[in-house]
Amino acid sequence: MTTMELLERARGAKTAMALADSEQKNRALLAMAGALERHQGDILAANEQDLAAARGTISEVMLDRLALSPERIAGMARGIREVAALPDPVGAVLNRVERPNGLVIEKTAVPMGVIAIIYESRPNVTSDAAVLALKAGSACVLRGGKEAHRSAAAIVAALQEGMAEAGLPREALQLVEDTSRQSANELMAARGYVDLLIPRGGAGLIRACVDNAAVPVLETGTGICHIYVDRAADLDMALDIVENAKCSRPSVCNAAEVCLVHRAVAGEFLPRLRDRLTRGRDHPVELRLDPAAAAVIDGTPAGPSDFDTEFLDYILAVKVVDSPEEAIGHIARHSTGHSDCIVTGDEETARRFLQAVDSAAVYWNASTRFTDGGEFGLGCEMGISTQKLHARGPLGLQELCTFKFVVRGSGQTR
Amino acid sequence: MTTMELLERARGAKTAMALADSEQKNRALLAMAGALERHQGDILAANEQDLAAARGTISEVMLDRLALSPERIAGMARGIREVAALPDPVGAVLNRVERPNGLVIEKTAVPMGVIAIIYESRPNVTSDAAVLALKAGSACVLRGGKEAHRSAAAIVAALQEGMAEAGLPREALQLVEDTSRQSANELMAARGYVDLLIPRGGAGLIRACVDNAAVPVLETGTGICHIYVDRAADLDMALDIVENAKCSRPSVCNAAEVCLVHRAVAGEFLPRLRDRLTRGRDHPVELRLDPAAAAVIDGTPAGPSDFDTEFLDYILAVKVVDSPEEAIGHIARHSTGHSDCIVTGDEETARRFLQAVDSAAVYWNASTRFTDGGEFGLGCEMGISTQKLHARGPLGLQELCTFKFVVRGSGQTR
Repeated sequence: MTTMELLERARGAKTAMALADSEQKNRALLAMAGALERHQGDILAANEQDLAAARGTISEVMLDRLALSPERIAGMARGIREVAALPDPVGAVLNRVERPNGLVIEKTAVPMGVIAIIYESRPNVTSDAAVLALKAGSACVLRGGKEAHRSAAAIVAALQEGMAEAGLPREALQLVEDTSRQSANELMAARGYVDLLIPRGGAGLIRACVDNAAVPVLETGTGICHIYVDRAADLDMALDIVENAKCSRPSVCNAAEVCLVHRAVAGEFLPRLRDRLTRGRDHPVELRLDPAAAAVIDGTPAGPSDFDTEFLDYILAVKVVDSPEEAIGHIARHSTGHSDCIVTGDEETARRFLQAVDSAAVYWNASTRFTDGGEFGLGCEMGISTQKLHARGPLGLQELCTFKFVVRGSGQTR
Repeated sequence: MTTMELLERARGAKTAMALADSEQKNRALLAMAGALERHQGDILAANEQDLAAARGTISEVMLDRLALSPERIAGMARGIREVAALPDPVGAVLNRVERPNGLVIEKTAVPMGVIAIIYESRPNVTSDAAVLALKAGSACVLRGGKEAHRSAAAIVAALQEGMAEAGLPREALQLVEDTSRQSANELMAARGYVDLLIPRGGAGLIRACVDNAAVPVLETGTGICHIYVDRAADLDMALDIVENAKCSRPSVCNAAEVCLVHRAVAGEFLPRLRDRLTRGRDHPVELRLDPAAAAVIDGTPAGPSDFDTEFLDYILAVKVVDSPEEAIGHIARHSTGHSDCIVTGDEETARRFLQAVDSAAVYWNASTRFTDGGEFGLGCEMGISTQKLHARGPLGLQELCTFKFVVRGSGQTR
């Protein structure tokens, strides 16, 4: 099937999805979880073919991301059941006014229509993304990476079976067959078919979508996250926060990449930071130091790009600043607008930092690692938005919906 | 000053705007209204130059849109004072959760940063757009049409004087000097400078922005609005609503362009509709009829594009349908997603129509002319959005803001 034929079918299924009530959607989700488990053998066999074809062509890390196991499939099914248990975002009345002329105006959450997701090689994204889009009442078009295509096709076949069991149209979930660049371009150009396009993957993919798409895009962004340790910081707390934000999972977008330290505490804090991040660790952190930090502790001199790099690794850029204002200015120039933190005991300094830093999440005395749909209480997420339109921060079910104004009258004219 | 220099200055002023409190912003708005009135003579003189240069090159209607008068300037000043009286959207806590780990997470409305507006020749847009952007805490870059440039420059000079009186930076309000196509392209390309671009004008301008902009765009759309007269309609009410939606102001986007009539009532309704819209009127409405309607009343046979045209004139396309489902299907194919209405006494039919029609505003028994910021109780608007991301329907002050998550902790790590 061509990509356009498939988009035509998805568009044809969107009214049925919009009219499905919560009970029917949840019944479908539970059937989809069951079908995934029932078809575990087919899915693992398809995944084995993907792995065999990919061996030697991609790195061990990438092979690991591609590999499925009974445990990983069970995790996908569990994730689906968790989404089924979340409240339905569709139909929520976000605002209601009764006007003096008697008109009742309800701003009501409604599905987007067709949500397309372009992603890379992790097979579990196939199930996560599909389930969130469908729960939000939209038809879903998935375009995954070439390496994982057989796995994705087996997963989608199982999910479609579950949808059909609950009386939802299989056509509402589509996997693009063509995994070449052309199909991604077709999705980006599909005005009138795709109501929302979400790229999930590396910076290059996201940039291509933002620059080229003629359809609406939600940008899930990269994170150059900062921790500013103020002169009024509790240094024990600051050490805990920097260690957690850097080391608990360095490969994710809410991990810290830069530590800014006030000059008044640099002499005491930096040696303790070096000890905490390097001594006796399985993965000692490489510190890349600006000249003022290098005057206090040993480390790698920071290069010109080190304050503009998402390391996603056990590397931390460190810089000494003279004031909270200098920290705020540095963050304005170098942050990707994801998550930035101040550690301080001074309430007024914190207030200014929280107001002046223009990022999706701004923290006072807590690790940036909390920027996450689950940690924010949304139950799930489709990624973290670093754009300012529509959705900023974790993309939960609400953010996958739009709204309309439903106006009820009794013959009013103007 | 080049457009890039001017964007640099606007960006430099955005922190001052974001930190301005409600009292200071409102003081500035009142001073801006006063300055407009004080400089009425300069503004009218500049406008006279614009008019002199434009005479003979543009139509009488366009000249009328371009012309200012003491009354129109007074209206602009009154509009500014009304915006000053509206609640400040910035700082509103949209959602607050306290997590089990003690983190307090507040989703807080914050300014966009720099809002750029590309518009055409109506000088009052200069003041309306600037004031809304500034009240929403953003710096504002205006790029108006060539014909109105002297008028716009005089208005902006007065407004800047008012801002300075209240201690806000003049740089937060900028008028682009270059009125060629190049400056519009520069604004569309200005990633990192323009946080939100709003085109206000004809379909061509809006299309160019949506297709070409690398910065986030809010699309203010055209309106092919429908009134569906159901078999269960109160026909007197239906006549009032169609007359109002078509004739009260045909040049605006929320005016109706198409009337769909259920076959069961077409024989009774259509002759009354013809009488109501044509007899004894200063501007009789031209009816463009599909074959089934033409079998009942006289009128112009509808051409192939008449159900896809925003007439903005005393013209109404009329079609007979066999069911509410056919009406919903026709609207799905032909509506621009602005405002569509059903007139019926049947609650279940109304419910299905309101749910199935995918437009910014859906009406039951009321005129589409109510889709308007003032009528919806927003107090003002920057246009009507027909897109689904971020804002749909009237763009009020809230929609000119974004939000961020402000997270307060006591040393939490994950």
